Amino acid sequence: MIKVAIVGATGYTGAELLRLLANHPHAEVVAVTSRSEAGRRVDHLYPSLRGVVDLVFEKPTLEALADCQLVFFATPHGVAQALVPQVLAAGVRVIDLSADFRIRDIPLWERWYGQAHGAPDYVARAVYGLPEFNRALIANANLIACPGCYPTSIQLGLMPLLQAGCIDTTDVIANVASGVSGAGRQANIATLYSEVSDSYKAYGAAGHRHHPETQQGLSDMAGCPVGLTFVPHLLPINRGIHATLFANLTCDDVDLQSVFEDRYADEPFVSILPEGGHPETRSVRGSNFCQIAVHRPHGGRKVVVLVVEDNLTKGASGQAIQCMNLMFAWDETAGLNCVGLVP
Amino acid sequence: MIKVAIVGATGYTGAELLRLLANHPHAEVVAVTSRSEAGRRVDHLYPSLRGVVDLVFEKPTLEALADCQLVFFATPHGVAQALVPQVLAAGVRVIDLSADFRIRDIPLWERWYGQAHGAPDYVARAVYGLPEFNRALIANANLIACPGCYPTSIQLGLMPLLQAGCIDTTDVIANVASGVSGAGRQANIATLYSEVSDSYKAYGAAGHRHHPETQQGLSDMAGCPVGLTFVPHLLPINRGIHATLFANLTCDDVDLQSVFEDRYADEPFVSILPEGGHPETRSVRGSNFCQIAVHRPHGGRKVVVLVVEDNLTKGASGQAIQCMNLMFAWDETAGLNCVGLVP
Amino acid sequence: MIKVAIVGATGYTGAELLRLLANHPHAEVVAVTSRSEAGRRVDHLYPSLRGVVDLVFEKPTLEALADCQLVFFATPHGVAQALVPQVLAAGVRVIDLSADFRIRDIPLWERWYGQAHGAPDYVARAVYGLPEFNRALIANANLIACPGCYPTSIQLGLMPLLQAGCIDTTDVIANVASGVSGAGRQANIATLYSEVSDSYKAYGAAGHRHHPETQQGLSDMAGCPVGLTFVPHLLPINRGIHATLFANLTCDDVDLQSVFEDRYADEPFVSILPEGGHPETRSVRGSNFCQIAVHRPHGGRKVVVLVVEDNLTKGASGQAIQCMNLMFAWDETAGLNCVGLVP
Amino acid sequence: MIKVAIVGATGYTGAELLRLLANHPHAEVVAVTSRSEAGRRVDHLYPSLRGVVDLVFEKPTLEALADCQLVFFATPHGVAQALVPQVLAAGVRVIDLSADFRIRDIPLWERWYGQAHGAPDYVARAVYGLPEFNRALIANANLIACPGCYPTSIQLGLMPLLQAGCIDTTDVIANVASGVSGAGRQANIATLYSEVSDSYKAYGAAGHRHHPETQQGLSDMAGCPVGLTFVPHLLPINRGIHATLFANLTCDDVDLQSVFEDRYADEPFVSILPEGGHPETRSVRGSNFCQIAVHRPHGGRKVVVLVVEDNLTKGASGQAIQCMNLMFAWDETAGLNCVGLVP
Repeated sequence: MIKVAIVGATGYTGAELLRLLANHPHAEVVAVTSRSEAGRRVDHLYPSLRGVVDLVFEKPTLEALADCQLVFFATPHGVAQALVPQVLAAGVRVIDLSADFRIRDIPLWERWYGQAHGAPDYVARAVYGLPEFNRALIANANLIACPGCYPTSIQLGLMPLLQAGCIDTTDVIANVASGVSGAGRQANIATLYSEVSDSYKAYGAAGHRHHPETQQGLSDMAGCPVGLTFVPHLLPINRGIHATLFANLTCDDVDLQSVFEDRYADEPFVSILPEGGHPETRSVRGSNFCQIAVHRPHGGRKVVVLVVEDNLTKGASGQAIQCMNLMFAWDETAGLNCVGLVP
Repeated sequence: MIKVAIVGATGYTGAELLRLLANHPHAEVVAVTSRSEAGRRVDHLYPSLRGVVDLVFEKPTLEALADCQLVFFATPHGVAQALVPQVLAAGVRVIDLSADFRIRDIPLWERWYGQAHGAPDYVARAVYGLPEFNRALIANANLIACPGCYPTSIQLGLMPLLQAGCIDTTDVIANVASGVSGAGRQANIATLYSEVSDSYKAYGAAGHRHHPETQQGLSDMAGCPVGLTFVPHLLPINRGIHATLFANLTCDDVDLQSVFEDRYADEPFVSILPEGGHPETRSVRGSNFCQIAVHRPHGGRKVVVLVVEDNLTKGASGQAIQCMNLMFAWDETAGLNCVGLVP
Repeated sequence: MIKVAIVGATGYTGAELLRLLANHPHAEVVAVTSRSEAGRRVDHLYPSLRGVVDLVFEKPTLEALADCQLVFFATPHGVAQALVPQVLAAGVRVIDLSADFRIRDIPLWERWYGQAHGAPDYVARAVYGLPEFNRALIANANLIACPGCYPTSIQLGLMPLLQAGCIDTTDVIANVASGVSGAGRQANIATLYSEVSDSYKAYGAAGHRHHPETQQGLSDMAGCPVGLTFVPHLLPINRGIHATLFANLTCDDVDLQSVFEDRYADEPFVSILPEGGHPETRSVRGSNFCQIAVHRPHGGRKVVVLVVEDNLTKGASGQAIQCMNLMFAWDETAGLNCVGLVP
Repeated sequence: MIKVAIVGATGYTGAELLRLLANHPHAEVVAVTSRSEAGRRVDHLYPSLRGVVDLVFEKPTLEALADCQLVFFATPHGVAQALVPQVLAAGVRVIDLSADFRIRDIPLWERWYGQAHGAPDYVARAVYGLPEFNRALIANANLIACPGCYPTSIQLGLMPLLQAGCIDTTDVIANVASGVSGAGRQANIATLYSEVSDSYKAYGAAGHRHHPETQQGLSDMAGCPVGLTFVPHLLPINRGIHATLFANLTCDDVDLQSVFEDRYADEPFVSILPEGGHPETRSVRGSNFCQIAVHRPHGGRKVVVLVVEDNLTKGASGQAIQCMNLMFAWDETAGLNCVGLVP
C-alpha cells in the first residue's frame, strides 16, 4: 500500500478519485485537502462516501503531502503550478488533473488561461498522461499532466486514423458533447438544474481552451500539424462525453474497422464496437472504458468516428489512476474494475 | 371559423396540433380520428387538454373528414397516401405531416421506407411546406407535404449560405440532435426512460431516412446537387432539435452575420442571434420559433451554423399551422403566439 | 390596455410573468426592473422572449412604477415591504409574489424569515390572493399577497374536505414535491444540475417557511386551528408541484368525489380528475390549471388527495395574473389560455 | 468459486446481477437464460458489459441450471414458481427476486397477482430475504424470496420503531417514490421517456401489489397487525427509492436518533445519517447501502423517517447477493463494495 493525497478533493474529479481509490488494492488515500472545507468530514460533503471514506478535509500543507508517495491535484488551473515544484522537490510524484502542464507552448497556455504560468520550467518535464499514446513515458514520469476530458475522447477517436495515415490532416472536425459535471462543482447560474435540464446547446463555437491541447496531441500523433474544428456542446446528463468526429479519407481501400480493432487490440480500456454500432454514454457511466465505433456513410470519402467516455473517469480521475498504476508498475487495471452503471 | 380534422391524433404531433389549435382564432377542430382509441375522450388520453378539448376519438371515415375545409394527417408514413386521394377528391385540402409526399424521387422514397408508394401521382402535386422557401406555392396548394423535423432545421440553417453561393456545396455536414418525442408515442424498449435518460448517442450514422429529403431540399436551394453528411443523435430531452452545421467557405470577404440577418429579416419565425450567440433548445420549447447563430472559428474557412427548433412545433405541427395560415390567407402567425417555456 | 411593471424580473417568476403577459389582451408590461441587470435587454437574458418582449431592464425607481396602474413584485422576501408603501401611496395597486405580506402574525413571520418586518402595518391591509377562497376580497384589493407555491397546492387540495367538515383537523399530512425552479435563479451549489438531476430528497423535514403560511390558510378554511405535518421534497424536474395529502375521515358516508367536484364546479382553473385518477405534473406544465384526484385506499378511514400545479404558474405568476384579472374586472382567464406542454 | 446461473437476465435486475457479480470473489456466472434473446451475446444487449461478461444467452433448461450451486430468478412473477421445484429437487439453491414466494397468504397472493399460484407448497419453505431482519434463517435457506424494492425501504425505515414499540401500529403511512427502472425493461407507452421525464405522479393510490407484502413484513416485526397506508409515486430518475414514512409516537421520552443508531449499529449496509439529515437517492446510486434519517417535526408526536436505497441494488440484486453471501457463509459484503455514483 502506498500513501496518496488529493489536493482539492471537494470538486467532482476529487470525489471521483475518492470513489475509485476506495477499492484500490495498492493505494490508500491518507490526506484530502481543501481550503474552504478544512475540518469537515468528507462523508458529510459527499454522503455517498459514508462507511467508505473516514477522512476529514485539511488545509493543504507541504508537510501532509510530503508524507505520501503520490499526490493528485484535482484543482482548478493555476493551483497545481504553484505547489508542484515543492512537492516534487520533496521526492513525491505528482499527477495533475488540471490544465497546468498540458500545453508545451507556454505563451499559448497563457493566452488561453489568461494568466502568467507559475512554473514554466516544469511543463517540459511533465508527461502527457494518455496511456494509449504515451505508456512507456508515463511509467517513468514524476509529473503527469492528465489530459482534458474532451481531448481524451477526440485523440482516442482519431489516433488510429492519424497513425494509419489515411485521412486528410488539414480538415478534421470534432463535434463533442459533455455532461454537466464537466463544468465542476461551483456556484454558477449557467449550470443550475433549471438552466440546463431538458435543453441542449453548443458553446465556445468560436474557440475553446481544449482546442490547443487537442491540436497539440493530434499533431503529435500525426507527425504533422493537424487542422481541427472543435465545437463543444452541453448535454443535460451528469457524466459522459460523446464525440462525433468527421474526417476525409485519403485512400479508398482502407478497412476502417480493422484499423481501429488492430490499433486497440491490446488496450485494456478501449473497446471497438462491432461494425454498425453506436456507442452510448451510459455504457461507460462510472467506468474507465472508452467505446468507439467507426462509420463510412453511404460508402463515401467521409469517415465518422463515434466515441464515448465518462468525463470524470476515463476523462479525468480514472485515467489518472491508470497512470498511477503504470507509474508504480501495478496491473494497469487495478482499482478500475467498475462496470458501467446501466440503467 | 373553418372546420378541421386531425387523422391520427393520438401521437405527439397530433396532440401538439390540438394544443396549438385550441387557441387558434380561425380554425376549430371538429374531428379527431384514431383506430385504436375510438370512443375514448381525448382529454382522458391527454389530461393536459382537460377543460380545453371536448372531443372524442372516432374511427377515420371519409364522411367525417369531408365535412371539413382542411384535414391534417399526423400519422406514421404509409397512412396518408392511402386516404389523401379521396379526401382531396371531396374538395378538402390536406396538410400531411408524415413523409409520404416529401420526396419527389418515388423509387428513392420506396427504398428508404421499404414499401411501394400508394399514391405516386400525388407526390408531384404536393407542395413542400417550408414557408421560408416556398411561401407563394404553399398559399395556393391543396396538398402540403410538411417537412421533417431534422430537414427543417438543416435547411433553415444552410439556406442563407446556399442562396448566397458562398460555401462549397460538395461537402456539407449536419450533426443534429433530437429530443425523444421525435421517436413518437409507441411502445418501444429503445425509447424507454431507463434506456434514454442520462445518456446520449448517435444513431443511423451510416444512413437515415431524413437524408434524401434534406439533400433534395438543399439542392433545390442551391440550384445544384449538394453533398451532405448527416448524423442524427438522440438527446435526453422531451422536445427540441439542435443542428450543428459545418461548411467550407468559398469566398473570404463575406459578412456571415449579415447574410443570415438579411435573408430572414422578414421572417416571423426565424430569429438570428447576435454575433457570438449560442441558441438553446429550451428557448423555443413549445414555440414556433427557429433560432440561429453563425460562427467562423478562429476566422478560418470553416463556417459553423447553430440552429434550434422545437421538433413538434416548428419541426412539425406549428409549421403545419403556419402553412394552414398561408393557405387560408390569414395572418401567418395566427394561433402561433406561444412563447418558449423557460425554465 | 393598462400599464404594468414588474420589479425583480430577472428571476423565474418574473420571466413567467413576462411570458404570460406577452399575450394578455388588457395589460402591457411597460417597465421591468433589476438592479443587477439594468441596461441589458430582457431578451438577451431570456432568449425565449426574442421577438416577443422588446424591453430593457432598468433600475427600480418610484417614477417608473408610478406611471403604471399595477406593479408586480417578483422579488425575494424583504424587498417588496420596503417599496410597497410608496407605490401604494402613488395610487398604484400592487401584487406581491413574495412572502412579505402573507402571514398575519408578524412575530411569526419575523422568526421564520430572520429579519424585522419593514411594513408591518400593511400586512393587515393585504388580501391573500387565492381566488378559489378569496375571490370577492381580491377584486377590491389594492395589495395582494400571492400565496406560495406549496401552500397553494395544499390549500386547494384540502379546502373541500375542511369546508365539508369531514376530516380530523388535528392531524393532516402534506407530503409535497417541487420542481427545482421553485428554488429560484441564484448561483447555488445545492441546485446545480449535477447535484439535483437523477436524484430525489426531502428537505426541511423538521420545519419549513411555508408551514406557517399553509397552516394559517387551512385554519381560515376550517374555522379552527389545523394541525399540519408538512414535508417538502426536491424533484428533478423544472416546473411542477405534486402534493400527496393524507387525512383521517370523521364520517363514513361521505361521497368524496362529489365533495371535490361540487366545491370546484365553477372554478375555471381547478379540475377534478375522474374517480381513480392520478394527476401528473406535466399535465399542467406552463398552464394555470390545478388538477386534483381523491382516493380512499381500501375503503378505509384515510383519505388521500393528489394535487398538481405548475409552481411558476398557478403557484406564482399565473395566479398573480388571475388576481389582476379579478382586480380589474376582466374575464378571470384572460391571458391564461396556455395549455399544458405535453410532452 | 461457485457456479451460478441467472434466469431472465435480460431485465434490469438480471443486468444488475451481472454488473455486481462481475467483481464477486467467490461466485462466477456460468449461464444466463432468456427465451427471447437465446443465442445473442450478453454484451450486445448490454454494451456496458463489454470486456466484462463473455456469455451468450441460452434457453432455460434444467440441465444448464442443475450444474450450478445457485440459481437467481430475475423473472416476472409467475415464472419462478413453475421452475423452482425442479431446480431445488436437483439440489440447487434458489434466490428468487420476483414476488412468487414473498406472501404467505396464498389466496391474497392470487388476488393481487391475478393467477393461481403454481407452487403453493413452496411458499412456506421460502425464507424472506431481508438480512437485517432474517439473517439467521437466510443462512440456512435453500429458497430465498427476495423482498420487493418498495417493501425493503419501508421495512428498514420502520423496523426500529416497531421493535422499540414506540409508535401507534394502527396508522402508519408510507409515501414512497421510485425511479423508472422499477417498472422493468418492457415495451410500454407508460414508461417512455417522453411520458415520464420532467414529470411526477402518484399511482396505485387505491391499492398496490407491494402493500400486502409490506404489511406482512411490518406485522412480523411488530408482533401484531400493522395498519399501513401506502402510496407509490413515479420519479423521473433511473434508479432509487425514497420513502417518507409517517407514524405517531406513543411515548414522549424516546431518543429517536439512538433508536435507529442502536438498531443498525452492526449492519454493514444500513447507515443512519446524523441528526437533521436528509438522504438523497443519488448517494446510494449503484451501491447496496440504505441511508436513513429520522425527524420529529416541531417536536410533536409525529415521527418522520426518510429512507433511500437503490431499487435495483439494495432493493433487488444487491440484496440477493447479500443473501447469497450469507447462504454460503462468505463475508456478507463480498462483491458489494460499489460506492454510490455521485454525481
